[in-house]
Amino acid sequence: MPTEMSVRELYELTAEGSQLEKDQVEYVQLQGWIRSNRSGKAVSFIALNDGTYLANAQVVYSADSLSNYEEVSHYLTGTAVSVIGRYVLTPDNRQPFEVQATEIDLEGACDATYPLQKKRHSFEYLREIGHLRPRTNTFEAVFRVRSCLAMAIHEFFQNQGFVYVNTPLITGNDAEGAGETFTVTTRTDGNWEKDFFGKHASLTVSGQLHAEAYAMAFRDVYTFGPTFRAENSNTTTHAAEFWMIEPEMAFADLDYDMAVIEDMVKYCITYVFDNCKEEMKFFNERIDKTLIERLEHVRSSQFRQMPYTEAIEILEKHKDEFENKNIFWGMDLNTEHERYLCEKVVKGPVFLTNYPKDIKAFYMRQNDDGKTVAAVDLLVPGVGELVGGSQREERLDVLVNRMKELGMNLDNYQWYLDLRRYGGCQHAGFGLGFERLIMYITGMENIRDVIPFARTPRNLMY
Amino acid sequence: MPTEMSVRELYELTAEGSQLEKDQVEYVQLQGWIRSNRSGKAVSFIALNDGTYLANAQVVYSADSLSNYEEVSHYLTGTAVSVIGRYVLTPDNRQPFEVQATEIDLEGACDATYPLQKKRHSFEYLREIGHLRPRTNTFEAVFRVRSCLAMAIHEFFQNQGFVYVNTPLITGNDAEGAGETFTVTTRTDGNWEKDFFGKHASLTVSGQLHAEAYAMAFRDVYTFGPTFRAENSNTTTHAAEFWMIEPEMAFADLDYDMAVIEDMVKYCITYVFDNCKEEMKFFNERIDKTLIERLEHVRSSQFRQMPYTEAIEILEKHKDEFENKNIFWGMDLNTEHERYLCEKVVKGPVFLTNYPKDIKAFYMRQNDDGKTVAAVDLLVPGVGELVGGSQREERLDVLVNRMKELGMNLDNYQWYLDLRRYGGCQHAGFGLGFERLIMYITGMENIRDVIPFARTPRNLMY
Repeated sequence: MPTEMSVRELYELTAEGSQLEKDQVEYVQLQGWIRSNRSGKAVSFIALNDGTYLANAQVVYSADSLSNYEEVSHYLTGTAVSVIGRYVLTPDNRQPFEVQATEIDLEGACDATYPLQKKRHSFEYLREIGHLRPRTNTFEAVFRVRSCLAMAIHEFFQNQGFVYVNTPLITGNDAEGAGETFTVTTRTDGNWEKDFFGKHASLTVSGQLHAEAYAMAFRDVYTFGPTFRAENSNTTTHAAEFWMIEPEMAFADLDYDMAVIEDMVKYCITYVFDNCKEEMKFFNERIDKTLIERLEHVRSSQFRQMPYTEAIEILEKHKDEFENKNIFWGMDLNTEHERYLCEKVVKGPVFLTNYPKDIKAFYMRQNDDGKTVAAVDLLVPGVGELVGGSQREERLDVLVNRMKELGMNLDNYQWYLDLRRYGGCQHAGFGLGFERLIMYITGMENIRDVIPFARTPRNLMY
Repeated sequence: MPTEMSVRELYELTAEGSQLEKDQVEYVQLQGWIRSNRSGKAVSFIALNDGTYLANAQVVYSADSLSNYEEVSHYLTGTAVSVIGRYVLTPDNRQPFEVQATEIDLEGACDATYPLQKKRHSFEYLREIGHLRPRTNTFEAVFRVRSCLAMAIHEFFQNQGFVYVNTPLITGNDAEGAGETFTVTTRTDGNWEKDFFGKHASLTVSGQLHAEAYAMAFRDVYTFGPTFRAENSNTTTHAAEFWMIEPEMAFADLDYDMAVIEDMVKYCITYVFDNCKEEMKFFNERIDKTLIERLEHVRSSQFRQMPYTEAIEILEKHKDEFENKNIFWGMDLNTEHERYLCEKVVKGPVFLTNYPKDIKAFYMRQNDDGKTVAAVDLLVPGVGELVGGSQREERLDVLVNRMKELGMNLDNYQWYLDLRRYGGCQHAGFGLGFERLIMYITGMENIRDVIPFARTPRNLMY
């Protein structure tokens, strides 16, 4: 009886297994898809990928050992097959092992119209065949890293006792008064009173306010789920649907917040280094040759801190180096400014703190200067802003005044204000765009290429 | 310097720590919320909960040791405080330890209008204050179990190399032709061509079809995300927004599918037994006194299998025992029938297999009898259906014929049919409603009580 193995298991066995174990595994059974089939008169080679490992397994088959040799030699790229054969170490070859087939069976045919042929395809082209692109090296790597990073996030928080909270996607609050939300309805006439929920409903842009309610019960919580923006912009960093991680911690101040952010980013980098070696090597070779070095640097850095006000002073001195030279206290920084600060000034990750209150959200805690709030953005080389967080305003009167100042309808937020009325305490949290993290860690430059089926304006394939 | 500790850490230290360790921890600092404050003239007791553990820590304070004794003794339920004190083992008392406070500071006041007083509140009442109910024992337990179960699911699949895929929430496919979906729009006039996506968009009812595309690349994948139903039904098991887990496996048949389902259910039970001991004890005492026994039984059972046709024969013989006595081959079973089969007939979990094709979805693989499909439902005592799955139809011609028979618009599914055209292989998968799993494992009977902020018809609080 052959041993059922995945390609990953064979690579791991080859790399790490003891000689004894290797000797025990003689005949193996593999199933997967043909990436290439180089056939000769008497001996042929299949590069077999089963999705468990980035590299292919080399399957050797010959007219001598295979009764259906002729047929198999005509199998095209994309064909699904089942292979039984001898597992043989080949330390002198490019492949560390090969499988010498004694049986190859067809599991699913594939004809020449298959859109993924051996040549390299552009990312643009592959976006048009989103249901097939995970079968290419790049996207196999991207989406395995995506999966690993999701696990890294869950492990990081659960190991420290954070409770995972599924905040609602459909909401009656148009959080932060942002107009750019999707409406959720069962009608076509905008008559919300007669609608499913009896009022206007939209897709959430953030789970933070709801997460705060749970932090006031569980102390440390995090969300990890989809969020939505109906923003009509076609850039490489915007999608209508994306995933966010939003931790929220009771009895925490801004320093605590920053410590958790730093730990989390380092944990994620270490996790993919440990669990996605092949993939990271691939990205470093094919996508960004400085990737691993850059991430190594971030992982071993002590993240610095810099107040926004100091950053503005520095940027003003160097304003000639920017496209947007209009630097002033109170401005929202552009990506070029953010990158300059971490890449040129600090030469590493930096927490920018204490932003002007007028460019930040209503719930951020006001500092004693009356002008700034206890907000923080983490800026990292190559990307700019990676994480945004703040200490939250826990003082009921200060919060209510700020909301009135901003013309918000307090009626909609009574439950949120309750969190300050009833044992509200110092607390803080942050938001991390999951796709931004994936792009940062893989070097991929378009958000459409790190989401399985991306949603953007006028694009709803699948 | 006191050691910062959580209530959980103190309980764990008390239960398991060595004497040496306990001796080292003398002064501790705790932060949390007052569940009760029994104050006397000279000595008083605070039951302190910090959300990390179901049980409270007993804080003892006296007029002798506290300068603000008078003030603290008036703190009401719900108040957030910071406590420094001596950690003392009290093996002869009901509490295994107490904290003899030397300092108690106010972190956030709470007045007598606080809706959660010491008495027990009905679940109905607590649903009206969804932002506060996680501060009660029942909901603290429910939502910690929910978080643990999410981790159990991720661990179970990731440990076996399954790739986590985030399938899209906004979709242009109205999967399975179900009419009961929510529309996603930025308009109020139903003019989809001018809408954000340039066509009609809805919220997904299942990620399965998209997951299949990824299974054809990665072999084993799973989704875990929100799904939506615009079903206007107010029952204890329906919500408009809920979370689903949908694994999909290439080169897998129905037997393989069942093996994975069985392993997963047992893994989840073991995980909560290991990680939520206090919570499970609580549910067993307060919610369902047979809960742990029932789950233990399921965990140690070998799940049985029974064809649908056999089940119908059995049910027909016992039809007088049902409310719905109209038993016939081709019917969809009601919960009473499902429960009868597992509770009375099999006396344990049972996989019901090979359902009539006309009551199952188009993508399920047709059996050779021409009447049934390779579908499976897992029925468990106390609940009925817990998981539904099937082998998928991988034969292009059979699938196309079935879709035509059902009057489906094939144009919308060309990408899905591509999965059969290009190396499609035998594959299978299943769907698990996450809330149903939580209800099953906690004994909670209303889906509104296992979702942080539940969405149901005409109910969109928060």
